[in-house]
Amino acid sequence: MDELELIERLHGVFGRGGPRVLRAMGDDAAVVRAGRYAITSVDTMVDGVHFRSELMTGREIGHRALAAALSDLAAMAVSPGEAYLALGVPAAHAADLVLDLAAGAQELATAHGVSVAGGDVTRAPVLTVSFTVVGWAPDAGAILGRDGARVGDRVCATGALGGAGAGLAVLEGRAGADLPADVRRALHARFARPQPRFAAARALAEHGAHAMIDLSDGLASDAAHLARRSGVRIELSLDALPLAAGVAEVAAELTVDPRVFAATAGEDYELCACLPAAGGAPTARVGDTELTWIGAVVEGEPGVSFPGCAEALSGYQHRF
Amino acid sequence: MDELELIERLHGVFGRGGPRVLRAMGDDAAVVRAGRYAITSVDTMVDGVHFRSELMTGREIGHRALAAALSDLAAMAVSPGEAYLALGVPAAHAADLVLDLAAGAQELATAHGVSVAGGDVTRAPVLTVSFTVVGWAPDAGAILGRDGARVGDRVCATGALGGAGAGLAVLEGRAGADLPADVRRALHARFARPQPRFAAARALAEHGAHAMIDLSDGLASDAAHLARRSGVRIELSLDALPLAAGVAEVAAELTVDPRVFAATAGEDYELCACLPAAGGAPTARVGDTELTWIGAVVEGEPGVSFPGCAEALSGYQHRF
Repeated sequence: MDELELIERLHGVFGRGGPRVLRAMGDDAAVVRAGRYAITSVDTMVDGVHFRSELMTGREIGHRALAAALSDLAAMAVSPGEAYLALGVPAAHAADLVLDLAAGAQELATAHGVSVAGGDVTRAPVLTVSFTVVGWAPDAGAILGRDGARVGDRVCATGALGGAGAGLAVLEGRAGADLPADVRRALHARFARPQPRFAAARALAEHGAHAMIDLSDGLASDAAHLARRSGVRIELSLDALPLAAGVAEVAAELTVDPRVFAATAGEDYELCACLPAAGGAPTARVGDTELTWIGAVVEGEPGVSFPGCAEALSGYQHRF
Repeated sequence: MDELELIERLHGVFGRGGPRVLRAMGDDAAVVRAGRYAITSVDTMVDGVHFRSELMTGREIGHRALAAALSDLAAMAVSPGEAYLALGVPAAHAADLVLDLAAGAQELATAHGVSVAGGDVTRAPVLTVSFTVVGWAPDAGAILGRDGARVGDRVCATGALGGAGAGLAVLEGRAGADLPADVRRALHARFARPQPRFAAARALAEHGAHAMIDLSDGLASDAAHLARRSGVRIELSLDALPLAAGVAEVAAELTVDPRVFAATAGEDYELCACLPAAGGAPTARVGDTELTWIGAVVEGEPGVSFPGCAEALSGYQHRF
């Protein structure tokens, strides 16, 4: 299949987009009816750096790359609109893999009302999947940044942590061989098919969240980004972290404290938000997921600390 | 320099953006005040595929990658707004090259009022520069597609053709050693620092252009894209093509018909537009460049032909 034929086939997978899309592929650029504010993020995944194509299906690769990009829009509490795909494909990769990748992205796009409205395909030495995603908001006040956390806020996380890191360990055969099949499958899915938390993000914003970030690098790093951007100190409780099922067993096999694993393994694409302590607190469920209170915003040098757990975290290294 | 420090330095190069930009880097996503319609294109350049980093400065690489992306917006006759950079960097590349690349892109962005408002940096096996660019239009009727060409239209090209291909041959030492230094420099610039033709595009749109495309693959391929999308036949005159200074000499050295070289070498990022024959014709200058009439839209099977020149083009291969 030559490149022009591949592009035609990709047009077929992605379709013409939703009613907002006036022109999708086939022109020099896509044309979309805009909202009042555009919220845009770029996320790139490179084979051998962010995933290993020999361990994942094309559908998983496409889903995961788009999910990671969309998660940034969820973290701003805005509605997703369009995605644009820059795809680098080595000659060795079959067109089937590329079309599966597109199908996996399109499935997730459909689930969230996102139109994959354009992009490009180039040759590249390794499979490279870069999504630019655009969300829309009717007013600037509805957009949640990282910079609004205030002393006295409570800090929460959605879902469960450590599942993606444990799923990767299972996928790579480093741990989890003795786990029940359903737990292994769930961990695999946590790594390969993360779910951007749009519903939870909307609920948290409606409950008056001051600041939010999505957990891509891991809670310890990401909460620190939020804390520095807000100019506050965040104290988190390692014991309070919600662990995904199977994380304790996988971390034990890897001889890591499971709480530290959950705080640092990254790629869960859950949300961490700061809410006023006095406001109407969200219930234990927000949107389609659980919510756990994990800490508080305090006075002090901007950054994150885990009071009483310095020893547990002493081996922690910042992941890039 | 570690990756977080590099990202900080990139923030410094790109700055906070223009008045339209509410949040640039430092959050999960950029926030921009939107126009009524968003026009978006993605263009990726991979070291060893689209350029050779050992033959270009970082500034040239950054300029060229952004120019190629912006050229797609010019082809739609819309005003550019923001650019988002997905950068893949091998460990072997010094941070200096990346910062030079950013500076080259920023210079071009400044010249066109574009804000580089976000992006990401990842490790990659080769230098990979992908720009997503967004333009804004107040009404959909002002956006020029590829699909509006009509039988009877005249076809024009901006600027001069073949210069980028000749510049690449000079850069790679394949030709042009005996050309005057100023001609060599001009050809080098045509390859390394193409100029998106926003001013010409606006002028052509104001003169009632029905369809437009930018010349990235080369006139023969790109005019064929436009013709097929419009469902018309385009007849072009090889003899009418405006050749950049030095193209005749370089093509002769490469034993290619200079007219064929100009029609197929690509990467000139000039515009090809179809205008009503009866309308007020633009003068020989549009915006900041020359305009040359090179053909007509006729009845027939959708595609491009060069009447009387089948032999000259018989060796022509489609470049991807």
